[in-house]
Amino acid sequence: MPLLLGIDLGGTAVKLGICDERGRVKDSASIPTRARLGPRVVVEDMAAAARRLKGFAATGSVGIGAPGPLDVRRTRVLVAPNLGWKDVPLPRMLGRALGRRVRLENDANCAAVAEAAAGAGRGVSSMALYTLGTGVGGGLVVNGRLWAGAAGGAGEFGHLTIDPRGPACPCGRRGCLEALASATAVARGAGAPDARAAFAMKSKRARAAVRVAAEALGSGIALVFNALQPGRFVLAGGMALAGHGFLAAVRRAAAARIFAAYRGDLEIVLAQLGADAGWIGAALVSNQKP
Amino acid sequence: MPLLLGIDLGGTAVKLGICDERGRVKDSASIPTRARLGPRVVVEDMAAAARRLKGFAATGSVGIGAPGPLDVRRTRVLVAPNLGWKDVPLPRMLGRALGRRVRLENDANCAAVAEAAAGAGRGVSSMALYTLGTGVGGGLVVNGRLWAGAAGGAGEFGHLTIDPRGPACPCGRRGCLEALASATAVARGAGAPDARAAFAMKSKRARAAVRVAAEALGSGIALVFNALQPGRFVLAGGMALAGHGFLAAVRRAAAARIFAAYRGDLEIVLAQLGADAGWIGAALVSNQKP
Repeated sequence: MPLLLGIDLGGTAVKLGICDERGRVKDSASIPTRARLGPRVVVEDMAAAARRLKGFAATGSVGIGAPGPLDVRRTRVLVAPNLGWKDVPLPRMLGRALGRRVRLENDANCAAVAEAAAGAGRGVSSMALYTLGTGVGGGLVVNGRLWAGAAGGAGEFGHLTIDPRGPACPCGRRGCLEALASATAVARGAGAPDARAAFAMKSKRARAAVRVAAEALGSGIALVFNALQPGRFVLAGGMALAGHGFLAAVRRAAAARIFAAYRGDLEIVLAQLGADAGWIGAALVSNQKP
Repeated sequence: MPLLLGIDLGGTAVKLGICDERGRVKDSASIPTRARLGPRVVVEDMAAAARRLKGFAATGSVGIGAPGPLDVRRTRVLVAPNLGWKDVPLPRMLGRALGRRVRLENDANCAAVAEAAAGAGRGVSSMALYTLGTGVGGGLVVNGRLWAGAAGGAGEFGHLTIDPRGPACPCGRRGCLEALASATAVARGAGAPDARAAFAMKSKRARAAVRVAAEALGSGIALVFNALQPGRFVLAGGMALAGHGFLAAVRRAAAARIFAAYRGDLEIVLAQLGADAGWIGAALVSNQKP
């Protein structure tokens, strides 16, 4: 079985590793992202770290996951606010450094592919992943393959309108899922320094913020269920780990908004691959036809 | 090229015909639905009408589209309020009468398949069809194939929540797309006998009802665009023919609710196959793997 190299480009760390076609991990590593030194240095750091991984010589294809937006043909990172980058032809640069073809994909899409193949999405042919962090993103797998959308922009679950009269969202609209259920929104709603603290607080205000987030997330799941009915919903990111009370509240909120006949078909579970999902998914995507 | 037989079971008429694998029509017919005489009589009527079609002897597979809900395995019509039927094993009954295998599918899903192959969805690999009539339904085509959902219930666009504080919907929730943008909702909002009259009226109240419907439909399209980003949206049914002013308003409302970067990728067009979409799609579905 050929080995695949995957790289996950994050704002503070680059995670990378080598796995097989089923996502079974052979070796992995993490290095700091020296984003301020520019794309060229980061690419050199990535290539050096990749060459140190066990099995690198046997790897065929290479995939890299990066924060969006990317261009439709996946040749460039258009804007990466966390990195301070603009219009970087990452696959070409990395391809030259590694002497291999490199496939670029959105990081949340990569995580969805990894969970579908080797994590919480095993056993179903369609899956929606919601990434719950400072923002809310997502990715879709349909018929066992990544569905990135006609122009590469599918899975923008964070900007589903939950309540047109809800709070303002940085995107310019109101009541987006991200404005109601991101870690940022929960912390602000609770008057806490971060979402972790908000979940630990017993105050009325903190509990209301968590309830609002769970209701909004349930609504955002019900929207995608009514439209697409994927076989499973997978929640990833810090917020997803907030505890069973939160997950149960999300399930109740989603179930209340879909047809009773389909309630038995609504599965909402936590992600299983943690911080490895990004690079594993990038590796797997490199092995799929675009 | 083998010929396919398609049947569209409606509340007042059964439409049927014969087409090839690309949806090119060879012959078609329409007969009244004698639903009150029971499924057995309707099946006999269908079979007799099918045998009279030119090319019937050369047909391989047979498809029938019926109003939902159907069972997941598509062996039965579970409930059909317009027909007064419950739990009817339609494919088995029709298969015996015609001496052929019969595939059953939801009628809106059939229309989506037909428009994708031979109508307004040609040239894109993914498409969402919204049927706008007394209710609002829909169907999804992804990667050139029908996507019916994990449990057969994808495309329930009529029950996307547009406004959680909106008007009550017969489904028991509030602010569903159907409660805001169906022909029934527009007529009631305008104080008109039907949607056609509502669109013709110049009163402030009628214009407001039409505006509400266009905004809601644009919101419902934006939700599916943000989640799935299909290459084209196709509007079918009486409401879709309300005139260019309505279509333009829907387009504006949808565009305002998606990322500016993707506005050039949002296509909203009218259906092209009219009342033939159902039977053509049923015929085509019969030729696809389940």
